Amino acid sequence: MSLAPMIEYEQASPEVRAVYDEIMAARKTDWINNFWKVLANDPATLRRIWENVKQVMAPGALDPLTKEMIYVGVSITNNCEYCTYSHTAAARGKGMTDAMLHELIAVVGLANETNRLANGYRIPVDGRFIPNS
Amino acid sequence: MSLAPMIEYEQASPEVRAVYDEIMAARKTDWINNFWKVLANDPATLRRIWENVKQVMAPGALDPLTKEMIYVGVSITNNCEYCTYSHTAAARGKGMTDAMLHELIAVVGLANETNRLANGYRIPVDGRFIPNS
Amino acid sequence: MSLAPMIEYEQASPEVRAVYDEIMAARKTDWINNFWKVLANDPATLRRIWENVKQVMAPGALDPLTKEMIYVGVSITNNCEYCTYSHTAAARGKGMTDAMLHELIAVVGLANETNRLANGYRIPVDGRFIPNS
Amino acid sequence: MSLAPMIEYEQASPEVRAVYDEIMAARKTDWINNFWKVLANDPATLRRIWENVKQVMAPGALDPLTKEMIYVGVSITNNCEYCTYSHTAAARGKGMTDAMLHELIAVVGLANETNRLANGYRIPVDGRFIPNS
Amino acid sequence: MSLAPMIEYEQASPEVRAVYDEIMAARKTDWINNFWKVLANDPATLRRIWENVKQVMAPGALDPLTKEMIYVGVSITNNCEYCTYSHTAAARGKGMTDAMLHELIAVVGLANETNRLANGYRIPVDGRFIPNS
Amino acid sequence: MSLAPMIEYEQASPEVRAVYDEIMAARKTDWINNFWKVLANDPATLRRIWENVKQVMAPGALDPLTKEMIYVGVSITNNCEYCTYSHTAAARGKGMTDAMLHELIAVVGLANETNRLANGYRIPVDGRFIPNS
Repeated sequence: MSLAPMIEYEQASPEVRAVYDEIMAARKTDWINNFWKVLANDPATLRRIWENVKQVMAPGALDPLTKEMIYVGVSITNNCEYCTYSHTAAARGKGMTDAMLHELIAVVGLANETNRLANGYRIPVDGRFIPNS
Repeated sequence: MSLAPMIEYEQASPEVRAVYDEIMAARKTDWINNFWKVLANDPATLRRIWENVKQVMAPGALDPLTKEMIYVGVSITNNCEYCTYSHTAAARGKGMTDAMLHELIAVVGLANETNRLANGYRIPVDGRFIPNS
Repeated sequence: MSLAPMIEYEQASPEVRAVYDEIMAARKTDWINNFWKVLANDPATLRRIWENVKQVMAPGALDPLTKEMIYVGVSITNNCEYCTYSHTAAARGKGMTDAMLHELIAVVGLANETNRLANGYRIPVDGRFIPNS
Repeated sequence: MSLAPMIEYEQASPEVRAVYDEIMAARKTDWINNFWKVLANDPATLRRIWENVKQVMAPGALDPLTKEMIYVGVSITNNCEYCTYSHTAAARGKGMTDAMLHELIAVVGLANETNRLANGYRIPVDGRFIPNS
Repeated sequence: MSLAPMIEYEQASPEVRAVYDEIMAARKTDWINNFWKVLANDPATLRRIWENVKQVMAPGALDPLTKEMIYVGVSITNNCEYCTYSHTAAARGKGMTDAMLHELIAVVGLANETNRLANGYRIPVDGRFIPNS
Repeated sequence: MSLAPMIEYEQASPEVRAVYDEIMAARKTDWINNFWKVLANDPATLRRIWENVKQVMAPGALDPLTKEMIYVGVSITNNCEYCTYSHTAAARGKGMTDAMLHELIAVVGLANETNRLANGYRIPVDGRFIPNS
């Protein structure tokens, strides 16, 4: 049904299995979700995206839960059904409660509204908001 | 230059001034940014949006900085110049460092990429990600 | 500054002039706005888009002002600066008042918010809303 | 299946029931659609959004049908399936005919096309379109 | 289930049949896909969109396969499920291989990421990139 | 004016210079455009994005010009001003003519229109378009 078939571990080439093994180890789980199984049709992209995710989502100045919630906010705004479900699940796994989910969605909704009020009226940016202006 | 003129405090009606006063008191500042000055052409909307912002952005299960960063993430995704500048400034006022801004933008960028990988391949959502499925 | 230069009437080929003449006649005006001057670099597209606009924006089951306001609502949602300014001006020329503009932008803002609430929570469509379901 | 369960009237708290009662009274109907049943998981948002909808969608300088059609135009542009179905149904309830729906969708389609022509060529806004410029 | 019923050839008016006949002849096929069957409820739009598609997608400075792949890239970015499936099928019919599809989706994903990095940081355009600047 | 300052070669750290050197060598040029100068504030992202661009935009099943044109199509759809200018310039450097640019923009415009016609009418995908369905 997807534009490329899902590659199961058993059928996977060694380079794909290597990525699957890393994902399962990093996530302390024994299954691979469909996103990676479809990307596996293009092993270079599978490896590349996994490396990106590892780097970007690692703990840093922002904690992993905050990063997941920003990810969910973007995914909702873009209407990515897959990503909304999968990153909401990931955020729950990192401690997001029901109350936090409701507040997250409320912020996303309001931001989408005021984005259009600002763009609709073509409001000029205040000089004080622009760094080094 | 905007589609409606900016209403300064001096010219404002009492109902508009009442909102301006609340905004300045809540933010402990003595100026009003352009967003509100343009909304003031439509006092019912000015009041309504201010009430929404107060409710949605108040501390709750999520802290105000996390909320601002989600706001920035949505605004970048929608390419709202005004909102990106103003909510980045607000987030900095609440403690966002340079390192946090870089990580925030990196997450937003990556989410926009993987949103299209998932939508592009039309990847079916894993049953485990769907609550009560 | 645009990706293609603006073609003025004086420099224009006969086929471009023919479209310009039709636009000015239809709009009872003596100037051509930049949108058409840039499309004129690709005369087939200039002719095609003008024919589309004439057909779609003609009075029909919806009056021209309602059509212009829907056009503005889409342009704001997509953040098209050119189209927001130009179709707002067109709507004003067809009778849109300040109060109507404010209500239009308020609807656009709210729709953008509730669109994300519905998409964010992944709310299933009620059977009653689906024709012939 | 949605990210939060649907709250039926029978299970609802008094504050949620109060909003449900207002919605049914305002719409002269005896059922509540899924949008509100999911928002009811977050009663403050349920109340807030209902107040927003009442204010923004009330008859004013624009009639309710025109507002619904603008709402549909935004929802199509953002690809909100839920909102496209529900607001089309609402517009039909307010008198939208088949012919009006076809023209509405045609305007939305064309606006999305010319938005990209204008943005694609990076066409500068004509000074005459900018108020007070 | 769609907002307008599908018009089969047998029920179609002569003007709709004329377009269907042209589509089948141009595509050397004996069936009509759902897109056209739904547009057929609005024969003027059916005719107009078919004329647009014929003109825009014809071989020219770009070959038809390149055009189809650009079409797919836009459709993925906008999350149009129908268009992603139908134009991917069209591109395959014109010679797109699995490897080409993977590279196409990879480019679309990356472009969506860097679009947000550029918009997020509000990076000013280099003068050298602007024609005639 | 951007949210982070531009890092010139002279001020850059060795790790940033290393990426700048690679970019200039790969592109056979002696300057660095603003995109990279701003990313340089976050050296890990600078390195990561450059590695992604090198991998994704390399010649493969698709030639580099086709990839650039898909990139432009996405950037126009998302209204990324920076990316539209910079990738149009890149495409011209790889041989895109005026006629090709016009056709590219025409395809992008039309795809954006038909995306909304398909989403607006909620047209079901034909079974024949879905692989392995």
